[in-house]
Formats: sequence, structure tokens, C-alpha cells
Amino acid sequence: MKNIIQRRINFITEIDKLKSIYRETKLIDGTRRENDAEHSFHIALMAFILQDYVTEEIDILKVIKMLLIHDIVEIDAGDTFAYDIQANSDKKERELKAANRLFSIIDDEYGKELFDLWIEFEEIKTAESRFANGIDRLQPMLLNYYGDGGTWKTYNIPKEQVYKRLIPLKDISPELWNFAENFIEDYYNIEVQNETL
Amino acid sequence: MKNIIQRRINFITEIDKLKSIYRETKLIDGTRRENDAEHSFHIALMAFILQDYVTEEIDILKVIKMLLIHDIVEIDAGDTFAYDIQANSDKKERELKAANRLFSIIDDEYGKELFDLWIEFEEIKTAESRFANGIDRLQPMLLNYYGDGGTWKTYNIPKEQVYKRLIPLKDISPELWNFAENFIEDYYNIEVQNETL
Repeated sequence: MKNIIQRRINFITEIDKLKSIYRETKLIDGTRRENDAEHSFHIALMAFILQDYVTEEIDILKVIKMLLIHDIVEIDAGDTFAYDIQANSDKKERELKAANRLFSIIDDEYGKELFDLWIEFEEIKTAESRFANGIDRLQPMLLNYYGDGGTWKTYNIPKEQVYKRLIPLKDISPELWNFAENFIEDYYNIEVQNETL
Repeated sequence: MKNIIQRRINFITEIDKLKSIYRETKLIDGTRRENDAEHSFHIALMAFILQDYVTEEIDILKVIKMLLIHDIVEIDAGDTFAYDIQANSDKKERELKAANRLFSIIDDEYGKELFDLWIEFEEIKTAESRFANGIDRLQPMLLNYYGDGGTWKTYNIPKEQVYKRLIPLKDISPELWNFAENFIEDYYNIEVQNETL
């Protein structure tokens, strides 16, 4: 029994490292990039607050657990920027190796649950994983929109690629999709106007 | 309807500020202090992983929601170090004012739920709030223990005060309390040995 608590504590101390894995997305105030722990916190809370707009039946506890653990693999595999095609080519392999190491730190019972939650998130086949992926992609868009363009501006991301990222949200929540669409159109219209000036 | 989504989005962008509220506790690697968003992420995941050790019946979703929102008041009220007696004297008043402003950004339905969750956490009268407070206090202890003493060392916190902080955990989970007790005894024994040398 003591051994099981100790393995859980070992896992808890291991995930402290997520606080040092930095993403491309900046905080809204633009002062610095956000890290995986902050991002995971933000999206878990977003899922809870936006769950009313999901059209399918979902288990919200499962969604929140999925969002809290979905980036843990990045402790070993690092963050892969969504719009970096090259880095995305071997992402799956790197992250699977990471999942095998990280989820075996904890005891088998939880290790299996966490691994299964991660796989479900990655495969985007269930209602919960569609919502989780939708929220995971909506969050950086909000930070970009309210943060003066963020990575859209820094890396000149075309509007079409931004729309493509949001597909899981469209499938699970037309209302949130419409809302996001307004943000994207608003941002890119202003960009076009600025370029014309 | 659009108005309600917009109020939820406003709340979501407001809580981005939690990423800039720094606590006294340092990351395990000692490189910097952790912030409220990172701390909230860490304890939400801890609650999920350690729930088996709770002796009372608990609603784990409620515990996780409570932990995700419990520090939001610090956006206005700032972080109050647990062992700072003076700062704790007007903490309640400062935080209540903050809760009134912050939880009214979102629509009334969620505003009330979030406010009630925060009050329940603060009052520590229910099983869920005992567990949530226990985890909220256990987490910085783990960071201190694995981080070479952390704030215990920096501020010379007496062992008795550390024990006192852990009371909610003792009430809800004797097993986790025993485990924490070993960490505290181990740390303070080593300290005493070092002083004697």
C-alpha cells in the first residue's frame, strides 16, 4: 500500500516538470509564453464553463481528466507547435514513447487509465475527445485574438489553417464554432485592412 | 444567448491573469516560484490521483472544480503566504471583495455556482472541501520536501506550524496524513542533524 502511494507521489513530482515546458502561445498580456501546466489549467476550467454548448451527451469529468493529462507526454517529447509540419511528422512516435515511460511511473491501475485517456484524446473518435480537442484548440485562439494576433501574427498563419485546426469544435459545438468564426474573421479582416493601408 | 457566451469568454480571458500571480512556493527544481495557474493544475490532478485514500464519500468532480477555481480571487487580492500572520488578518475581506467582482463577470448561473464553490472551499465544512483543502496544503509540502526545504527553509517555519496546516488532510485521509508526516519528520530530522554538525 505504501508502495502505491509512493508511486503516485513520484508521478505527482514528475509532472512538476510540465511547468517548464513552454508553448508557442503567449499570455494575453504578451509578457511571455505560457507553459503546459498553465495551459492545462486554463482548458480544464474552460471545459467546465463551456459544457452547455456541446450537442452530444458527454461525461464532463472524463473531459476534464483528459485535458489535465493530455500534455504530460511533452515532459519527454517537448511541445510541438500545431503549425510546424516537420515537427509534426514524428510527433506520434515521440509521444508514444513518452507515454510509455511517464504513465508507468504511477501504479498499474492509474497508469492504464491515464494511458487510455491520452490515447482517446489523440484519436478524437468519442464525444468527450472531440470536445476536449475543440477546447484545447480554442484556448490558444482566444489568447491570440485578445493578445494582438499572437502566433497568428508572429508566424503569418493563413486563415484557412486556423479554421482547419478548429474542426473538432465544429463537430461537437456549432455555437462555439460560430463564436470562434467571428473572432477569426474579425482578426483577419483587420489584418487585411492594415495591409491595404 | 450570444451575450452569455461572451460573458463566459470574458471570464476565461480574465483568469489568464492567474498565470501572473506568483506564490511563495518554488518549483521542485528551484528555478523560480510557481504561479496560481500552475498550482491549480497540479492540485486538480493530485485530487484525481489520490482520491482512493479519502475515508468519506466525496464527489470528485466537485473537488476538482473547487480546486480549479479556489485561487481566482487572488487576481485581485494577491497571494497570501500561509505563514504570514499579518497578511492573513484582512485576507477574508480582500478575497470576498475580489470574489464579488470576479464571479460577476460570468453569467449569473455560473457566477453563483463558482461563488458557492469558493465559499464551500473556504469554510472547510464538507467532505469535498476538507479533501480539497488537504490537497491544496499537501502540494506545497511536496514541492518543499523534494525541493530541498523550499519555503520551510527560507522562512524557518517551525515543524508545529507545518503540522497545523495539514489538519484538513488528517480529518479526511489518515493514510495521506501518515505519509505527509513521514516527509515532515524526515525533513526536520535532517535539519536538526545539520544544525548539530
